[in-house]
Amino acid sequence: MQERTVILEQTIVKLAEAKKYASLRDFLATLNPADIAEAFGQLSEQSLPLAFRLLPKELAAETFVEMEPDQQEILIRGFSDLELKAVVEELYVDDAVSLVEEMPANVVSRILAQADPDTRKMINEILQYPEDSAGSVMTTEFVELQGPMTASEAIAHIRKVGVDKETINTCYITSKSHRLQGVVSIRSLILAAPETPCAALMSPSVVSVNTLEDQEAVAQMFAKYDFNALPVVDGDNRLLGIVTVDDAMDILEAETTEDMEKMAAITPSDRPYLATGVFAIWRNRIPWLLLLMISASLTGMVITRFENSLVACSALLAYIPMLMDTGGNSGSQTSVTIIRGLSLQELEFRDLFRVMWKEFRVSILCGATMSVVTFLKILLLDREGLLVALSAALALLFTVMVAKLVGCMFPMLAKKVGFDPAVMASPFITTIVDVLSLLIYFLLASVLLGL
Amino acid sequence: MQERTVILEQTIVKLAEAKKYASLRDFLATLNPADIAEAFGQLSEQSLPLAFRLLPKELAAETFVEMEPDQQEILIRGFSDLELKAVVEELYVDDAVSLVEEMPANVVSRILAQADPDTRKMINEILQYPEDSAGSVMTTEFVELQGPMTASEAIAHIRKVGVDKETINTCYITSKSHRLQGVVSIRSLILAAPETPCAALMSPSVVSVNTLEDQEAVAQMFAKYDFNALPVVDGDNRLLGIVTVDDAMDILEAETTEDMEKMAAITPSDRPYLATGVFAIWRNRIPWLLLLMISASLTGMVITRFENSLVACSALLAYIPMLMDTGGNSGSQTSVTIIRGLSLQELEFRDLFRVMWKEFRVSILCGATMSVVTFLKILLLDREGLLVALSAALALLFTVMVAKLVGCMFPMLAKKVGFDPAVMASPFITTIVDVLSLLIYFLLASVLLGL
Repeated sequence: MQERTVILEQTIVKLAEAKKYASLRDFLATLNPADIAEAFGQLSEQSLPLAFRLLPKELAAETFVEMEPDQQEILIRGFSDLELKAVVEELYVDDAVSLVEEMPANVVSRILAQADPDTRKMINEILQYPEDSAGSVMTTEFVELQGPMTASEAIAHIRKVGVDKETINTCYITSKSHRLQGVVSIRSLILAAPETPCAALMSPSVVSVNTLEDQEAVAQMFAKYDFNALPVVDGDNRLLGIVTVDDAMDILEAETTEDMEKMAAITPSDRPYLATGVFAIWRNRIPWLLLLMISASLTGMVITRFENSLVACSALLAYIPMLMDTGGNSGSQTSVTIIRGLSLQELEFRDLFRVMWKEFRVSILCGATMSVVTFLKILLLDREGLLVALSAALALLFTVMVAKLVGCMFPMLAKKVGFDPAVMASPFITTIVDVLSLLIYFLLASVLLGL
Repeated sequence: MQERTVILEQTIVKLAEAKKYASLRDFLATLNPADIAEAFGQLSEQSLPLAFRLLPKELAAETFVEMEPDQQEILIRGFSDLELKAVVEELYVDDAVSLVEEMPANVVSRILAQADPDTRKMINEILQYPEDSAGSVMTTEFVELQGPMTASEAIAHIRKVGVDKETINTCYITSKSHRLQGVVSIRSLILAAPETPCAALMSPSVVSVNTLEDQEAVAQMFAKYDFNALPVVDGDNRLLGIVTVDDAMDILEAETTEDMEKMAAITPSDRPYLATGVFAIWRNRIPWLLLLMISASLTGMVITRFENSLVACSALLAYIPMLMDTGGNSGSQTSVTIIRGLSLQELEFRDLFRVMWKEFRVSILCGATMSVVTFLKILLLDREGLLVALSAALALLFTVMVAKLVGCMFPMLAKKVGFDPAVMASPFITTIVDVLSLLIYFLLASVLLGL
């Protein structure tokens, strides 16, 4: 499947750079918009507008939506007003909104000038919702039906208005004042006897979200309920728009990437890696690196505090990396599991004590296993004394217990107080556990070895 | 939205435990199958079958599909043959297959005995595809149309067969020998003039996957192409089944969880955290912890090798944690970014040198920033000598460079040779970088301080 895309790309680039436009046009017409957009990403700034103009009108708009903002901007800057109008008219409202959000101000005013007044009004309304809210990602182009309509009347209505709607697969039944009453699928309408009223076909237990709901929660609802679309309502249950499953999938991917970036101590960015500049990457990474580096000085201070003991019994030195790494790994196993569980809504704050009790038992099992291995290794392989082996092995057990408890408590507490649990992943947990593990180790060694 | 689920759960549990079955029945009928399944998860083993029997037939089957395997097994063991048949008959084939895959052998034979012969045959066919392949997750219940059919004939055909199909939103045009020729949406069929032939309405550039394609690649295609369904074909382009977007979304979530678990050095498991036993969790975590702990001995050996220098200049000790942690964090920032890029197919092996060049420049920027901070901190705050400061600062710069290069190369090379790049995340990268960073540090210090 990846090879396929590469072959397509090479063909398109070759035809475009060789200026074989007639063949390129015929070839492009057989392709999928997402593939064309990906291939167009490889074209030079000169070839891109020429190649784009070869696309039939509808395919052109569909391809445009799939392109990266850089490419979209190059195209718009090269468009005549007429060309821009043709593309903008074919866009669904939610796609037009994303476009407007990505473009610089002077491009935006050109886009809005070319949209027809109704579309412009819808775009402006959606733009007023907070970023990442259900309102900001919904489309206002949905099919609205009334309860008393029969199935055949509904289908006739859909035939009339459907061409401008983002989906007709799911339709919504509303009252005269546009309050949401139920949902009916095109499938029920088609399979029903033609004279059945919509009210009898609809499901009244319709799940909806408020315009201000977070987009990630909205996307998770698609995964849970297997919807094709989800209605978005205001505080009075008036239907304002819908979110469709393809957008939900994109949101889910973007939010997952964001979570992973946060878990790796990176400020999330919207742009794909290869399209991000070196300075931008540096800016997203360096604050966290500095913060964590400075926090690691704490661990250094623990070492300095026990410097004399370490110099007196230098055999202890060799086990510092093993303790630090195992503590970090144990903590990150737990924190990643908990963060993912929270984000999939499998875990909630009320589960805190169940989780702590489970991690406590797991940490004893994991800690004990590794303690025994370490104890035997130090005695038999490294041939160090019993007390050194005992200090390292006991410190390891306590380190794993601390790491797993910190690893489960911190993300859940973060969620409770309204922070993003994803930030409480390996890097932070590791830094905290490092300090604690070395403290435990040196204190144990001081007592046992009488340093 | 979470509060809503909790309230539903409490109401259902209260009504069930108080044996108010008539009210419970009325209440359940207004709910969504996914919500009912979640609430039923909280019921006792005694109440569950009683509550389940209150559901109307269709809702019962839909709820059954959404339940956890444990609950499903409790129900099946309590079902009479007649009750089991009623549920199995309502299941779509792909859901029946998942059920059969989850249940123990004696339950499976009861399920298959209650399925009608056609369904049994379809289940058995799907069961023969390799685990996690497109064939194993597809459903065979799709709508097949012929090119010469008119739109109205097609709709009439759909009205006849549609009730048993998993989706009618996307239909497929095939030749007499069932070779895939095109795809047509129910939307085009409804919006078209009734006499238009399907061949004129279909899109011939249909993207399909082979039965053996990996399910993760299939799910990624939904994200890329915004499909509602994707056709699955054999080597001769014969249409065998479809994968629907709701299943793709579940696959994407499961595969993401699996990636995150691997990245945190955990053997992935299918079961939700709270439903997994302490020993099972221990089994999934301990092999990696042991492996990484033993690898960390290498770092310990580096320390042992330079023990005398460290004892001679114990000021060096304090900067070991800072070097190890910063190396680990720098490497994990890069590896997580690259692993995610590979899994979203934004990056491929052919990008290796572009990625290395980019990370090289980022590592110099990040490394230099932190080196300067560290150098000044050691001189001015810790009041150590110039040469100690220089050793630590230079070691830090080289550590970050090594970490970022290892962090980008290892996942890409792993992918190239067919390993899962997700395993090449923080824990492994950290272990490798630890050894290298301390080696660099001690060698630099030996030379600069003449130890």
